[in-house]
Amino acid sequence: MDFQDYVSVDCVIFGYDFERLKVLLLERVMLDHTTQSVIFADKILPGSHVLNNENVEAAARRVLVEFTGIEDIPLHQFKTFGDPDRLNRQERDILWLKNIHQDPNQRVLTVGFYSLVDANKYKLSVTKQQSHPEMFKRNPAWYDIEQIPEEMAYDHKQILLEALAYLREGVKYNPLIFELLPEKFTLGLLQKIYETILNTTFDKRNFRRKLLKMPFIVPLEEKQQKVAHKPAQLYRFDWKLYQQVKRNNHDIML
Amino acid sequence: MDFQDYVSVDCVIFGYDFERLKVLLLERVMLDHTTQSVIFADKILPGSHVLNNENVEAAARRVLVEFTGIEDIPLHQFKTFGDPDRLNRQERDILWLKNIHQDPNQRVLTVGFYSLVDANKYKLSVTKQQSHPEMFKRNPAWYDIEQIPEEMAYDHKQILLEALAYLREGVKYNPLIFELLPEKFTLGLLQKIYETILNTTFDKRNFRRKLLKMPFIVPLEEKQQKVAHKPAQLYRFDWKLYQQVKRNNHDIML
Repeated sequence: MDFQDYVSVDCVIFGYDFERLKVLLLERVMLDHTTQSVIFADKILPGSHVLNNENVEAAARRVLVEFTGIEDIPLHQFKTFGDPDRLNRQERDILWLKNIHQDPNQRVLTVGFYSLVDANKYKLSVTKQQSHPEMFKRNPAWYDIEQIPEEMAYDHKQILLEALAYLREGVKYNPLIFELLPEKFTLGLLQKIYETILNTTFDKRNFRRKLLKMPFIVPLEEKQQKVAHKPAQLYRFDWKLYQQVKRNNHDIML
Repeated sequence: MDFQDYVSVDCVIFGYDFERLKVLLLERVMLDHTTQSVIFADKILPGSHVLNNENVEAAARRVLVEFTGIEDIPLHQFKTFGDPDRLNRQERDILWLKNIHQDPNQRVLTVGFYSLVDANKYKLSVTKQQSHPEMFKRNPAWYDIEQIPEEMAYDHKQILLEALAYLREGVKYNPLIFELLPEKFTLGLLQKIYETILNTTFDKRNFRRKLLKMPFIVPLEEKQQKVAHKPAQLYRFDWKLYQQVKRNNHDIML
């Protein structure tokens, strides 16, 4: 037994497809060895053990590529989950662990990461053959955040919901949303994505007034092209200016 | 080897003494077994291994009581430090680990917690005799944040500085400061503690105007008593009202 038996990472990847907020999950399917019939199937986050010589952040990047094909995205460490019984609260988890020859009573702590990406930008695929390929985690796919599956492995539903809370706080105070927007965007698109992620609606005039007070949201000398309706003003997010504004910002925003 | 050999917690306890911001550190002293002369001495955060059956948060609470006598304070998990070489970058750490019969190449991941307390409120003391009592971590004491010791164990200086960054972000968006203020306070005291923690100065009029816009900072029908100068208005923080205001607050504050 060594480090890698005790520590894992789990990635909660949120995807916005310019319609809805989604989350990336894998399938966990347990088959009967003899009949190949399905004993149970549920969903699991992309995650795995941290290798002995591997930095925890590096492990999260590796695991994400192996299970989903997604690489080079910002990953935000949000919380470590360290309950001693996080792997053996559900009957089917115990069954699963025994089946892959792991001790259900052995403790594994997991470090949680989240990210927000453009869901249309990635072709999901498993890039590395995992052990137990016939029954292991597979089929990475986006699931609507409003329809998170009830049945998830271990404490993964809790991890997912806590990540969602961190995301919702995060987009209010950090420019996470602008990382996935096109370089030039309309305020209408901006409002829509904030509304989708925060699951709320904003008054259009108040939203525009508030956002346009921020000096790093810069109007362009350009309008939308090829639209049926009246073309809207385009804006860009000035990252340099944002850093400048934030550097010595001690604004209290309780 | 089991779980507790691979996972630890470290606590960064910030203390405000109504003058300056401090941080709680312990001494680590390595003595020559024969002559009892000091080979080296440096500072270390209160931290220790997570017991096999112990929740990570519970471990942080336990360790804090054992090494400092402080109990029942809010602990905020802020980041997990998982570099494979975090324990063996410095010569004296390697020397120390060998001396206490631990393998300097064995990896330990640590979960970091921070808190902000009234430094005057606690009498610091080691409540549980540690192993190697003659040389182990001891003498919990407050150190001025402007004079953090250069020499610290392992990556503890990095952990401390990252915790300080989390604290400074934290007090801007969360009511951490009000947890340590007296029930009734003046805006002058409030301004001073924000200024001390954020290491900045605020214009008095702007600060007052901004804070008094917050409905949960409530003026009392009372003024200061027994002061030499003109008595100032007293205020209280209304936690219930704060929760109400925040519950459905989707204000974007980039």
